[in-house]
Amino acid sequence: MGMPVEFNTMIVTKGKEIRIEENVFELMKDGYRIYPLNIPLEVRKTKDGEKTGTAHVEKLELTDNVTKVTYRLVSLHSTN
Amino acid sequence: MGMPVEFNTMIVTKGKEIRIEENVFELMKDGYRIYPLNIPLEVRKTKDGEKTGTAHVEKLELTDNVTKVTYRLVSLHSTN
Amino acid sequence: MGMPVEFNTMIVTKGKEIRIEENVFELMKDGYRIYPLNIPLEVRKTKDGEKTGTAHVEKLELTDNVTKVTYRLVSLHSTN
Amino acid sequence: MGMPVEFNTMIVTKGKEIRIEENVFELMKDGYRIYPLNIPLEVRKTKDGEKTGTAHVEKLELTDNVTKVTYRLVSLHSTN
Repeated sequence: MGMPVEFNTMIVTKGKEIRIEENVFELMKDGYRIYPLNIPLEVRKTKDGEKTGTAHVEKLELTDNVTKVTYRLVSLHSTN
Repeated sequence: MGMPVEFNTMIVTKGKEIRIEENVFELMKDGYRIYPLNIPLEVRKTKDGEKTGTAHVEKLELTDNVTKVTYRLVSLHSTN
Repeated sequence: MGMPVEFNTMIVTKGKEIRIEENVFELMKDGYRIYPLNIPLEVRKTKDGEKTGTAHVEKLELTDNVTKVTYRLVSLHSTN
Repeated sequence: MGMPVEFNTMIVTKGKEIRIEENVFELMKDGYRIYPLNIPLEVRKTKDGEKTGTAHVEKLELTDNVTKVTYRLVSLHSTN
């Protein structure tokens, strides 16, 4: 018996993040996932897209085969 | 940069579980921990103690270096 | 980008273990897997079968989407 | 009972890597660690130092509370 988990090294939003505070967002991802907490992670809109910012994951909630990721954006990456 | 996580194969309550529903309990554990979700796990009061029951972990919440484990007791192990 | 890993709480051999020493066996499993090392784990021939023994995992090797598990059988469970 | 594991998102060599092939290195790290396999990871000499290159982890071996990481350098980051 096992439990599949995906280790993630960056946050890929696919534009589905929901703002819950000034710089804090929630994102629902399929399956059970681990994102390192409290260390800087890249944020991208798509897996192969440009980096859009840097965030710290503040909370992970795993239930019903879904993971809710709460992250705080600590910097934006502008590309103009 | 890394994130320490502890993989757990059983639930050790140390008597600190809080009942939130008929058979559902919450337990706060130090650090970031993974318990396999939705598979039967042994419940013990102490690490080296007797098995007190079997539970399914229904939710894990990792934040601020604490893990909240929500589990549903599916059977009790009576030792009389 | 993520890496799928399966956390396992028991060793399911499907009869594919290879003896490499008196009580030491190697088992190849699909995908990347974590078995807790150096703590007693149940050994079964099939997922839903009877417990056949107890083992300690001594080594995990993850490469090319396969995990080699080296375990030492510490007790046999006879069912007569 | 639990097993502590550290999830790592980059490779910090501290200059202790051993070359085993043209672009392939082995690195011994304390404790049990997971580095995502087969995805690009930053290589640094020190945790807070400059990026020195990008590598793919090809193999992880966990035994005796040590993790051997085999990685292939896929690009060097020159800073001149």
